[in-house]
Amino acid sequence: MGIFDFVLGRRLANRESEQRKIGAFEGLPAMGLDGLASSAYGPEAALAILIPLGAAASSYLPWVMAPIVALLAFLFASYWQTLRAYPTNGGAYVVAKENLGTNVSLLAAAALMVDYVLNVAVGIAAGVGALVSAVPALHPYILPLCLGLLALITLVNLRGTLDAGRMFAMPAYLFVGSFLLILGIGAYRIIMENGTPAPIVAPPAMGEAAESAGLWLLLRAFASGCTAMTGVEAVSNGVSAFRQPSVKYGHRTLLAIVVMLGALLIGIAYLVRAYGVGAMDQSQAGYRSVLSQLVAAVVGNGTFYYVAIGSLLCVLALSANTSFVDFPRLCRMVAQDGFLPESFGIAGRRLVFDVGILYLGATAGILLVAFAGITDRLIPLFAIGAFLTFTLSQAGMVRHWQRALRASPTRAAGLRMHLCINALGATMTAIALVVIVIAKFVEGAWITIVVVPCVILLLKTIRSYYEELYAHMRDPTPLDLRGIEAPIVLVTFESWNKLSDNALRFALSISEDVVAVHLSQLSGPDRDEQQRWLRKQWRDDVEAPAIAAGLLPPRLVVLNAQYRAMHQPILKLIRELQGKFSRRRIAVLIPEVVKRRWYQHVLHTHRAERLRRKLMLLGGSDLTVINVPWCLESPTLSARERPSARADATAERASGSSQRRTPARGP
Amino acid sequence: MGIFDFVLGRRLANRESEQRKIGAFEGLPAMGLDGLASSAYGPEAALAILIPLGAAASSYLPWVMAPIVALLAFLFASYWQTLRAYPTNGGAYVVAKENLGTNVSLLAAAALMVDYVLNVAVGIAAGVGALVSAVPALHPYILPLCLGLLALITLVNLRGTLDAGRMFAMPAYLFVGSFLLILGIGAYRIIMENGTPAPIVAPPAMGEAAESAGLWLLLRAFASGCTAMTGVEAVSNGVSAFRQPSVKYGHRTLLAIVVMLGALLIGIAYLVRAYGVGAMDQSQAGYRSVLSQLVAAVVGNGTFYYVAIGSLLCVLALSANTSFVDFPRLCRMVAQDGFLPESFGIAGRRLVFDVGILYLGATAGILLVAFAGITDRLIPLFAIGAFLTFTLSQAGMVRHWQRALRASPTRAAGLRMHLCINALGATMTAIALVVIVIAKFVEGAWITIVVVPCVILLLKTIRSYYEELYAHMRDPTPLDLRGIEAPIVLVTFESWNKLSDNALRFALSISEDVVAVHLSQLSGPDRDEQQRWLRKQWRDDVEAPAIAAGLLPPRLVVLNAQYRAMHQPILKLIRELQGKFSRRRIAVLIPEVVKRRWYQHVLHTHRAERLRRKLMLLGGSDLTVINVPWCLESPTLSARERPSARADATAERASGSSQRRTPARGP
Repeated sequence: MGIFDFVLGRRLANRESEQRKIGAFEGLPAMGLDGLASSAYGPEAALAILIPLGAAASSYLPWVMAPIVALLAFLFASYWQTLRAYPTNGGAYVVAKENLGTNVSLLAAAALMVDYVLNVAVGIAAGVGALVSAVPALHPYILPLCLGLLALITLVNLRGTLDAGRMFAMPAYLFVGSFLLILGIGAYRIIMENGTPAPIVAPPAMGEAAESAGLWLLLRAFASGCTAMTGVEAVSNGVSAFRQPSVKYGHRTLLAIVVMLGALLIGIAYLVRAYGVGAMDQSQAGYRSVLSQLVAAVVGNGTFYYVAIGSLLCVLALSANTSFVDFPRLCRMVAQDGFLPESFGIAGRRLVFDVGILYLGATAGILLVAFAGITDRLIPLFAIGAFLTFTLSQAGMVRHWQRALRASPTRAAGLRMHLCINALGATMTAIALVVIVIAKFVEGAWITIVVVPCVILLLKTIRSYYEELYAHMRDPTPLDLRGIEAPIVLVTFESWNKLSDNALRFALSISEDVVAVHLSQLSGPDRDEQQRWLRKQWRDDVEAPAIAAGLLPPRLVVLNAQYRAMHQPILKLIRELQGKFSRRRIAVLIPEVVKRRWYQHVLHTHRAERLRRKLMLLGGSDLTVINVPWCLESPTLSARERPSARADATAERASGSSQRRTPARGP
Repeated sequence: MGIFDFVLGRRLANRESEQRKIGAFEGLPAMGLDGLASSAYGPEAALAILIPLGAAASSYLPWVMAPIVALLAFLFASYWQTLRAYPTNGGAYVVAKENLGTNVSLLAAAALMVDYVLNVAVGIAAGVGALVSAVPALHPYILPLCLGLLALITLVNLRGTLDAGRMFAMPAYLFVGSFLLILGIGAYRIIMENGTPAPIVAPPAMGEAAESAGLWLLLRAFASGCTAMTGVEAVSNGVSAFRQPSVKYGHRTLLAIVVMLGALLIGIAYLVRAYGVGAMDQSQAGYRSVLSQLVAAVVGNGTFYYVAIGSLLCVLALSANTSFVDFPRLCRMVAQDGFLPESFGIAGRRLVFDVGILYLGATAGILLVAFAGITDRLIPLFAIGAFLTFTLSQAGMVRHWQRALRASPTRAAGLRMHLCINALGATMTAIALVVIVIAKFVEGAWITIVVVPCVILLLKTIRSYYEELYAHMRDPTPLDLRGIEAPIVLVTFESWNKLSDNALRFALSISEDVVAVHLSQLSGPDRDEQQRWLRKQWRDDVEAPAIAAGLLPPRLVVLNAQYRAMHQPILKLIRELQGKFSRRRIAVLIPEVVKRRWYQHVLHTHRAERLRRKLMLLGGSDLTVINVPWCLESPTLSARERPSARADATAERASGSSQRRTPARGP
């Protein structure tokens, strides 16, 4: 247990929940890395599409980035007002559920889930890929590095979102600081050198223009560049991680992410043109990324270059953290609505949703292993989920404002403004989504279109299981106490000792109909059984004292376990008894040695445990299984097991209530 | 379940035990392969020591093999009479236990166990090694081949010794037949060609003599050659595998093994000299084993060569089977005496001792992985265990005859003859043991001398645990029925439904002191709890009907699970109650949904299961845990669960006994 405390931190109480929530300082590294890392691959992806334009590519980039930055501004405004309208949770799932119905909300949930899993795999693979291209000696270790990093991020998030935010603050702020500085220096030099700065390290010359700029090429560049926006939705989905007032901290975090991302995108587009940087073919030797060329051009290949590129690598690799913050919280809401297993909704040791975190880690790990840590092929799938949820979330908000308008026509002006922003945003992201799907359909976007409906089907199937279960379990009638009578108790035992003695005493204390069941030949055919001796001992040590105490003596039954399994003859006996006494419950009492030490699990057979499991599985609802533990040593409550003060108070009341009663029966 | 039936065969009943035992036909392949395979490496090991003698080596071989064959004859006579004296089990462990006391028997058991594990690892590695040197393309797959073969042998033995004997009969008899034929042809040609036959494929010329034959060299050759005798003890240790009369089938199997082994050893020694075959250095390229040279010399490199060498490979690789027959049976006897965990003594699905088989497979697998499938270094450890048990077994028999002499002086002559055979045998094997230990001490024999005492210590520790356990559990007094009163029953529940309804009805049927415990905040801090609604429902649906039925209404207690773990507040409540009512038992009733399908394990939280485990572990002997199952569907007894006819008969009696009683109480 000490090891868990050390690795994951001590178990937290429910009442510590508020102290474990985050503010904007931790919010940026916890949720913002996905968005900030987008600045590294968004402009690069757009430039890569523009390679056929040759040296003209970088001058077209601003025309591609401008609508993206405009879209970003709209998204920002839209999420800003969504956060205010849904202060507890403004994620696409909730907004769609409230405004567009269950089916649309499941579409949003499925798209988000797929997107989050892909984001983890792609983010980690991209970070490790960049690291490996910087240090080629690490090339044989791509997969172990990916899995190690995944394990680290999983572990840190199991410690809690606060820990993750604090732990990843350093690289996040270092990245933001150094790149804003570099862009500042670059811009300063452009101004000082009259728009044509001399790069300190000249970027490689771009090829000849192979074609001229057409609308389709620019649209494809726009579709690729849109990956720069993924991650902006993170704050809205993870709003429950913020401390009160959560809207304030959510707004601050969202503002910080969008301002920094916007500055980076504008700066990069501006500097790329001025310094003549273009994308290089990744599959060619000597490949260098756009940002790497740009940093070298502005500040040279010195220490600052390595600090900036190092922090970029960290941010790329840690962009997976955004998913680890949002995915478990999304799954929790979906689970609370019955579309995912209940365990996704249970707060774990550190008040985060462990099952979701572990599930995300495992799924991303499987993807990484399946693709051997090289997830380039997953990238085309990537932006679809994000833009689908952008669109659904804003479409939901349009409905939200429409309703609000109908409800309070007095505030019409302000509400109409909100409505317009969201409607415009929804339209723009929908157009972008269509462009992305068309542009990337063949590259792999079709996979998302196949997977998302499957996920929705799974969610609905889970929900229908729970609906059936709860329909069966529902019990609207008052407790029916007619015909209550003590059960027939079967006491199973292997040999006559304190365990069976203890069990028999308990059996006689709850019912007068006690049958002791001794099982022979459990170990196999050759073991000799001392049945005669047992029957004599039974007469002397059980029947005689029972008769003396005025009780009906329990009967001894010896069953032959032909197949070395206890449950078969016992179930047969139970069926017999049930046939004769159709209304009476049957309870099987199983004495069990409590195993406190690891070696006891090796030294004892696990018959009691197996019998219990089999009887529970096969016995039906009329059978009750009673475990009577027997300990070698007497137990002591360790410090960890000591409950809280609040439990004390209620326990006091409970024991008070029992004290008033009188014992029901006895000899 | 179907998959188990297919792979392991159907579950066998105790009464089928006798039909599953083996005769001599299956006995030879099941137990004899270790002994027969010895003929492949014994003479080779002796010749390898004689390499410094150059061409003279092969003429010295008969002088080394003669005492080995003589020793084999003594061992045969000795085991023959041991089998008759101990018809149920004449293994070294039993003989030593009966005659030389517990400590010596543990020495024998430990030596045998170590020997059996080594035999599996070495046998499989040797077989695969020979295969790989024949087919070099398989070289990269040594370890997978070893583990695959180990898995196959383990699986076949889990199906039962009879299956193993039948399955491995073909290679065993093919090996014996082809090698006896080759030795016959070789001897015929020696006679026809006047003692100097021309080899069809000439063996490579032997080197110059580097030294002359000294006593120490011959002694070392003897010690190495003694590995030819390992496996002779197999029949005595596995006698319980034979069908009745087991002595007859044991004798037949022993005779077959020893006669064939003796013929092979004599024939090889004779032919090696006549055809001028010598050992080659294994580490040199172009190495060929002695038997391979010999076969080629006698019958050439044709089809027959490949059949003979192929069957030899099979026998080498399958020699591990002997351990799989004997080790689980030895462990079973040791476990019955309390020196090993009880589970080693339980017959499994196919009436063999599964735990021993699986343990042997796992341990040998670990050795194979640790040594990467190349276990040459383990070979020096190998003969010590065998010769130690030879000596102990015969020393035990000497004591046995001494006692018999004292008991019946009339049969003195016959008994003295038995005594002499065993005494001579014991002396010879003891001398051989000393020679082996001295000759191989540095090569690794010291490891056995370290490991065996550790195993003995472990066995004694296990026994002392059981002794303490049974001393604690022993209960010589009659059942004490004073002060029996119904327990205080705590009914735990999460929400009010049929589960809790069912549980509460059961609780009220066994005791009047019922406290219902509702746990809140189990999922975490944010989940809203509908406590007020619950309390109202409790009054209407539980308290009212209970009062109407004349029962004391159960109280509702709400505990706050600050740490999302149910057991802490419940244990605290129990401690409180125990403090107030020191003599009363407390029973915790846990309603549980029965999970019949795999997906239910995913869809349900496992709170009930975890609570049960924690309460059993920490609650102490005064706490009883009651599981009330609740099934979605009603259970049906599958054909597999239908018990035997014998269980029927006793069940009939049990239900008869209950019928005579009257219900104890009811509303």
